[in-house]
Amino acid sequence: MTQQDNYLSTPSGLFFEDFKLGQELIHGVPRTISEGDVSLYIALTGSRFALNCAETVARSAGFYGIPVDNLLVFHMAFGKTVNDISLNAVANLGYAEVLFNTPVFTQDTLEVTSKVIGLKENSNGKTGIVYVHSVATNQHHQVVLSFKRWVMVHKRDLHTHMETPVIPELLDVVDSEQQVVPKNLDLKLWKEHYSDHQLRADEFKPGDILFHRDGITLNDSEHSMATRLYQNNARVHFDQHMMDNTHTGKRLVFGGHIISLCRALSYNGLGNGLWLSAIHGGTHANPSYAGDTIYCQSKILEVKQFNRRDDMALVRIQSLGIKNNTPDNMEYLSKVDNGRTRYHSDVVLDIDYSVLMRR
Amino acid sequence: MTQQDNYLSTPSGLFFEDFKLGQELIHGVPRTISEGDVSLYIALTGSRFALNCAETVARSAGFYGIPVDNLLVFHMAFGKTVNDISLNAVANLGYAEVLFNTPVFTQDTLEVTSKVIGLKENSNGKTGIVYVHSVATNQHHQVVLSFKRWVMVHKRDLHTHMETPVIPELLDVVDSEQQVVPKNLDLKLWKEHYSDHQLRADEFKPGDILFHRDGITLNDSEHSMATRLYQNNARVHFDQHMMDNTHTGKRLVFGGHIISLCRALSYNGLGNGLWLSAIHGGTHANPSYAGDTIYCQSKILEVKQFNRRDDMALVRIQSLGIKNNTPDNMEYLSKVDNGRTRYHSDVVLDIDYSVLMRR
Amino acid sequence: MTQQDNYLSTPSGLFFEDFKLGQELIHGVPRTISEGDVSLYIALTGSRFALNCAETVARSAGFYGIPVDNLLVFHMAFGKTVNDISLNAVANLGYAEVLFNTPVFTQDTLEVTSKVIGLKENSNGKTGIVYVHSVATNQHHQVVLSFKRWVMVHKRDLHTHMETPVIPELLDVVDSEQQVVPKNLDLKLWKEHYSDHQLRADEFKPGDILFHRDGITLNDSEHSMATRLYQNNARVHFDQHMMDNTHTGKRLVFGGHIISLCRALSYNGLGNGLWLSAIHGGTHANPSYAGDTIYCQSKILEVKQFNRRDDMALVRIQSLGIKNNTPDNMEYLSKVDNGRTRYHSDVVLDIDYSVLMRR
Repeated sequence: MTQQDNYLSTPSGLFFEDFKLGQELIHGVPRTISEGDVSLYIALTGSRFALNCAETVARSAGFYGIPVDNLLVFHMAFGKTVNDISLNAVANLGYAEVLFNTPVFTQDTLEVTSKVIGLKENSNGKTGIVYVHSVATNQHHQVVLSFKRWVMVHKRDLHTHMETPVIPELLDVVDSEQQVVPKNLDLKLWKEHYSDHQLRADEFKPGDILFHRDGITLNDSEHSMATRLYQNNARVHFDQHMMDNTHTGKRLVFGGHIISLCRALSYNGLGNGLWLSAIHGGTHANPSYAGDTIYCQSKILEVKQFNRRDDMALVRIQSLGIKNNTPDNMEYLSKVDNGRTRYHSDVVLDIDYSVLMRR
Repeated sequence: MTQQDNYLSTPSGLFFEDFKLGQELIHGVPRTISEGDVSLYIALTGSRFALNCAETVARSAGFYGIPVDNLLVFHMAFGKTVNDISLNAVANLGYAEVLFNTPVFTQDTLEVTSKVIGLKENSNGKTGIVYVHSVATNQHHQVVLSFKRWVMVHKRDLHTHMETPVIPELLDVVDSEQQVVPKNLDLKLWKEHYSDHQLRADEFKPGDILFHRDGITLNDSEHSMATRLYQNNARVHFDQHMMDNTHTGKRLVFGGHIISLCRALSYNGLGNGLWLSAIHGGTHANPSYAGDTIYCQSKILEVKQFNRRDDMALVRIQSLGIKNNTPDNMEYLSKVDNGRTRYHSDVVLDIDYSVLMRR
Repeated sequence: MTQQDNYLSTPSGLFFEDFKLGQELIHGVPRTISEGDVSLYIALTGSRFALNCAETVARSAGFYGIPVDNLLVFHMAFGKTVNDISLNAVANLGYAEVLFNTPVFTQDTLEVTSKVIGLKENSNGKTGIVYVHSVATNQHHQVVLSFKRWVMVHKRDLHTHMETPVIPELLDVVDSEQQVVPKNLDLKLWKEHYSDHQLRADEFKPGDILFHRDGITLNDSEHSMATRLYQNNARVHFDQHMMDNTHTGKRLVFGGHIISLCRALSYNGLGNGLWLSAIHGGTHANPSYAGDTIYCQSKILEVKQFNRRDDMALVRIQSLGIKNNTPDNMEYLSKVDNGRTRYHSDVVLDIDYSVLMRR
């Protein structure tokens, strides 16, 4: 190292002690969503929900243009938070109260802010849990999306200790009154063939189970392209050299990509579930890697009519992402064992969400 | 399975008995073509035909904007038909009378309808051949593309039998009078360098053979991204877990992707073949898999002048897609043996098409 | 070969003897840059420089829309030159005087011309070095980018000999007076969080060294998609069948893709280096292949204030691309041994460039 040389450290994200209750983080790199992002989303996930694919269809449903898939919006917003919140995360423990407010159209620009709403040091003294409430707004300062998530984050200094933990109240289910029907959304003029003549809300009842026959095999370049598209810079998804020293020796697939694959796979059977209105909770039960083939099973939890609308109903769905297996039942996939759900190793995702579905 | 649980079956496509002569199928998921689709098409295929790459070039040729590559239009339209026609196909046997009518520009929305024009049960009683005539229209209800294809489809019930087969008349070659010169297309102002100073129509004669030197190696993520972009949901392209139980144990590359690669490879030599006007016939002689390197050889079948136009001629071309070999002749690649063409295992595609080429 | 068959040769690029001093080459396939290209660039490289990601940010900086990343512009322009200049290249030896003039926005169309400015036959009599000056213009005939590069090209005929070599004067560094600040670019209204509150120009001094912690592992489909997107048709990047017969047996990663990865990786630390104004020189020290993980280290060479501007300064940076290693120092990576720099096998790129950075 020559005389005048000086090594500077580069940003490495926040550690547990760096988070303060009530702290507000304005995340970097605002992002304008473009038609290119939308095409890549389709190419990477195979999504076929008609409302997000054609201007004629979107107009017939009351929109002035094609709304951007809410999961693409979610991943873009989530990606913005990673550099501050989860660069030093051991694990993404879960999310709740994911609520889609204003529809996003191409040319809209997203900006994301997060507030620290809970902190709890783990007994091992090495890590802590950080709870944040993140809000994505568009260029008109309208709230597009808000969600809560909690992550286990490394401590910088093992000798510091935090006194009283603060754990926020999180809703198990976003109240249906809270969920937003996009302004002007109207499915009266919807044509049967738009969504392949599939079942409508009134034809489903709680307890109905669908096995979505299609499967998608993960390739490293696809999940890493998706994750980079979302500008999510968590190293575990891209850096094989680093992952060589982990027990699996593989790059981890971004959990959000699995959510998108499951939603895309669910089209066959739930193709009329046009508008994702809320995600009540999600768990990445097991990791996925390149080479795994992802399948999806769904269970109808609730069919709720509202506002006397005869064009749509609110349908709550549980979808399980399953890898490398096409079981004919959902029973063995999870067990509740003293209050805690335990998943079979086949399960990669358990997500509970609501959609606006044609009646 | 708990008391109230109820397993619903999800859409699984039509079987041979489900098709009725004259039946009309309006396919799902209309699609607006975007700039993102066009960029992905270039990135996935390496296409370099100048008319589809630059606004300045397209305008000099009489278009108001860049026309979408006709093969991208074809794949998008084809993709729409899969969910109804070929989800239970054993094989895509061929296509004929692929005719491009109205040019497509980004922001146009495609919708596709198919009519059953022929049905023939196979002697084995397990499968049948379905012939369809598919038509893609834009948002102005103009026909953009029409084509015929026939596929071998599984029967649902081996005990049913179909009496009189109906086999439609299919043209060997789309009559040149039928082929459409896009309104206002004019190559008088075309600049030599746009298409790399390559040979023009008048410099070719029937029997000329070109070996296009470039080769492209297939990667799983590229062909599956392409196929998902086209929203073609045939499982054989994506589901490795399912394909593990086939004799090759590999995901099949979508034949349309091979057509696009061969057309892109043909740019070196046929770069002035600017407008694909018709595909007379196509055969996927052998399957392709990730790892295969695709090469292309072309033979000029006809050079036809028309309408006294001195800026362009209609050139009919036979292109062969060849894998993992760069032969210096086309002889050994196919043999006609009592009326039937038999292909060498190197051949993956034999396609007969016409282009409007600069004179 | 039947009687009338005739084998035509297809374009195979220029050989050393084909180049004449002062010769001007107008390259083929003009290209309109679209939003799709921009999204793909982000997905393929993970770039996060805020100025290229959001309309709100670009407007706050004085632009009417999002400027296209200058490296995407460079690769597109470079790609156009390959078909004429380097199809028969043994190696890209280097570039110099890469100067970005007019910003590019989506919908702009690039056209590229090259002039031969130097020729030197190698002593082995088999190859020669060709020096070209390439200029990319937009549809308004404004110069967007100009650069010089030199490549080692095969001779067609080993018996021809060239007399007097002509070697052009090449600047080691593009003079700062030459470098262009885009019209209206103004960073006074830039918000701290846009670029993640990173260090500004005044906080750097010559000799500062940053190790950018992120790493990106190369996948074959990504680098080949990137290279096809740029319509760079050098066979070594795509044709595995051909590369099987090389000593490594692998497809070569396009050097430009490595430059983009290093620039993207440098965001963590140099995120305020918003505008790439010039590349003074670049060397691809070692080849990269799929499976390699690319890291980047940067050294600040100069921080120069100019025009009394208090919103930005010109910062000259040396970045090294390093594969499969995360060294804590830059010393061992290169040695100057009698006037010539020799690189450690870990080094894949040594690039010297300037950016406009926030003060």
